[in-house]
Amino acid sequence: MTEINRWLLPDGLEEALPDSARRLEGLRRRVLDHFDVWGYDHVMPPLAEYLESLLTGAGHELDLQTFKLTDQLTGRLMGVRADLTPQVARIDAHRQHVAGANRLCYVGTTLRARADEWSGSRSPLQAGAELFGHDGLDSDVEVIRLMLATLEVCGVHRPSMDLGHVGIFRSLARAARLEPEQERAFFDQLQRKSIPEIEQTLAQWRAAGLDPDLADALRALPDLNGGPEVLASARAALGRAPAEVHAALDHLEAIVEDLQSLGTEVDLHVDVAELRGYAYHTGLVFAAFIPGSGQAVARGGRYNEIGRVFGRARSATGFSTDLRELARHGDARGDPERPRQCVLAPAGTDPELEAAVCELRGRGVRVVRELRGETPVTDADARLEYRNEQWMVVEH
Amino acid sequence: MTEINRWLLPDGLEEALPDSARRLEGLRRRVLDHFDVWGYDHVMPPLAEYLESLLTGAGHELDLQTFKLTDQLTGRLMGVRADLTPQVARIDAHRQHVAGANRLCYVGTTLRARADEWSGSRSPLQAGAELFGHDGLDSDVEVIRLMLATLEVCGVHRPSMDLGHVGIFRSLARAARLEPEQERAFFDQLQRKSIPEIEQTLAQWRAAGLDPDLADALRALPDLNGGPEVLASARAALGRAPAEVHAALDHLEAIVEDLQSLGTEVDLHVDVAELRGYAYHTGLVFAAFIPGSGQAVARGGRYNEIGRVFGRARSATGFSTDLRELARHGDARGDPERPRQCVLAPAGTDPELEAAVCELRGRGVRVVRELRGETPVTDADARLEYRNEQWMVVEH
Repeated sequence: MTEINRWLLPDGLEEALPDSARRLEGLRRRVLDHFDVWGYDHVMPPLAEYLESLLTGAGHELDLQTFKLTDQLTGRLMGVRADLTPQVARIDAHRQHVAGANRLCYVGTTLRARADEWSGSRSPLQAGAELFGHDGLDSDVEVIRLMLATLEVCGVHRPSMDLGHVGIFRSLARAARLEPEQERAFFDQLQRKSIPEIEQTLAQWRAAGLDPDLADALRALPDLNGGPEVLASARAALGRAPAEVHAALDHLEAIVEDLQSLGTEVDLHVDVAELRGYAYHTGLVFAAFIPGSGQAVARGGRYNEIGRVFGRARSATGFSTDLRELARHGDARGDPERPRQCVLAPAGTDPELEAAVCELRGRGVRVVRELRGETPVTDADARLEYRNEQWMVVEH
Repeated sequence: MTEINRWLLPDGLEEALPDSARRLEGLRRRVLDHFDVWGYDHVMPPLAEYLESLLTGAGHELDLQTFKLTDQLTGRLMGVRADLTPQVARIDAHRQHVAGANRLCYVGTTLRARADEWSGSRSPLQAGAELFGHDGLDSDVEVIRLMLATLEVCGVHRPSMDLGHVGIFRSLARAARLEPEQERAFFDQLQRKSIPEIEQTLAQWRAAGLDPDLADALRALPDLNGGPEVLASARAALGRAPAEVHAALDHLEAIVEDLQSLGTEVDLHVDVAELRGYAYHTGLVFAAFIPGSGQAVARGGRYNEIGRVFGRARSATGFSTDLRELARHGDARGDPERPRQCVLAPAGTDPELEAAVCELRGRGVRVVRELRGETPVTDADARLEYRNEQWMVVEH
């Protein structure tokens, strides 16, 4: 191994040098303070847990993403968190005993076995907010608006947003009595919007006796995406679908209406078949995109089932984002993360100098002490000098 | 596995619920802001790295502490960081190209295979500061004073501090031509201050021809601890020891003198044989203790060699602490981490209400929206109500 190789970081793992760290730390604080004024309490889940508690209810995709470790104390398998949302759901369900609504938020580093398809990252700095204990329009709207306001705070202005509802495809699949393997295969075709494959599959199923109304409804899904007017087309195309499908469309309509009444600044898209990346979601799902880019910068939705396996089913909705991505894409204007001004102070143990240094630092001024024997520092803005029998800051 | 078991966290891994998270976040910000006014730039090393870069130069102890993972992309072994100091040394040596002094700081979660003997933690929230590129009294004193000031900022007042110097034992071992195995065994006896074993070992070595002056010096080590006056006893007891031992004693004396001239508030102890937990250190070492407790809450020292294996030897000194421990032990008076006041706001999409909510949140007031269908919230301090044709905050 050469010296050069030894330095390389694994793909998708990044470190932040002072300029980026200043920016990330600024974003981190702004996001947490923002969550706080919206009423969300900060929690810090552990970096690793036993696999049973980390992955139960969270789906196969998260399992593949999770690095496993053997706990030397017990011989049991642990995982490094690849997603904080299931951890926060566990905290709500098990550690806290809030009867009604419970609002929690977090910021934490994750580790993933495989890179994100867009950013290439294997260690997102995940920030998010989750609202537990309420099932309905108001909590869905609150979380969507909190997500959009958070992006605004981070300098991502007027994002576009996809809205979908996991219940539409799931209800149709259930009504059509698809086997899990069939559902997975069709879901995959749907995600790729591969019309020839979809038509071929449906032709086989029709021949095998699938209800023609359900076949028509499944065929309509990949075309039902666009502006909010898509909801009207969906009503028509899915007219004979089960009641759950109509309940899901009602819900999407009510969300769109509320967001519009509130004057929410967002380009809304509806995609009734959009389900990508929503491993544990059960209802409304949404994702925000940077305008003109295919990259989701925040996503979320409702996941009412995740607490059930832990013995306490709680309604839940929330969203999360990667602060490293926001630091790259957000507009940095007005950021408080400018490089610091710096005052140099001479070396030595003079108590008066010491008092002057303390006083400056107490006021938030950065003071760097000179070190005897070092190369003189040249990029300071000012220096503490002894003039007229006192220590004073002299600008350069 | 029962539902109860599924919830348990692995030993030594903790999560912070809202009250502790508020306190930890407050400490985190205060410590980083404090490092900043002392001139230390924040960096964020990655959560995992290839083992070669994570462990090279860092010693066997850290290897045992480090959880290993296989990188699925390359098949190479990675480690989850168990200590951020070697990572920051790598950043200074390789990523940055500062010719003179370079001051860096960090806060980050670590993961350790085995629990800390005192706190039981396997996931310290490590905060620390490192000063690279200067070898001498001023940087050692700066880092010690920064450590003490950091503890003060975190509410640990007037700690006691142990000072030692790795060079004293190492020089004696080298002069005595001890084999690595012999050095390790004697070092272990020294740490346990096991006088009978030490005397037995030295008797064997004397019989095998060890220089009597060196044998006397090695025998004196376990007794040379106490107040700063121990340095004078050490001069006498180690009178015939090699010149490096005297240089180390000179250095310790100069440190004590500087700390005293600066009026540093600390109970100073000197232990010329104290070396525990200083895996990669090469010179001065120090640890701060909570008064009346045997538990070190911060420790550090000089480690000039760690950059050499990476092709760029840089002088280095620094310290680190565990913010979770400080949150437990520090005096909480005057903390800004009190629970937040909370204003309730009715549900709905009234634009005037929306504007009132935004205005309050913009001023840093926590506003929680009611959710239609939820159990009414009872612990709010105030509520937004519509009176005299405007929305106003009404205290409860």
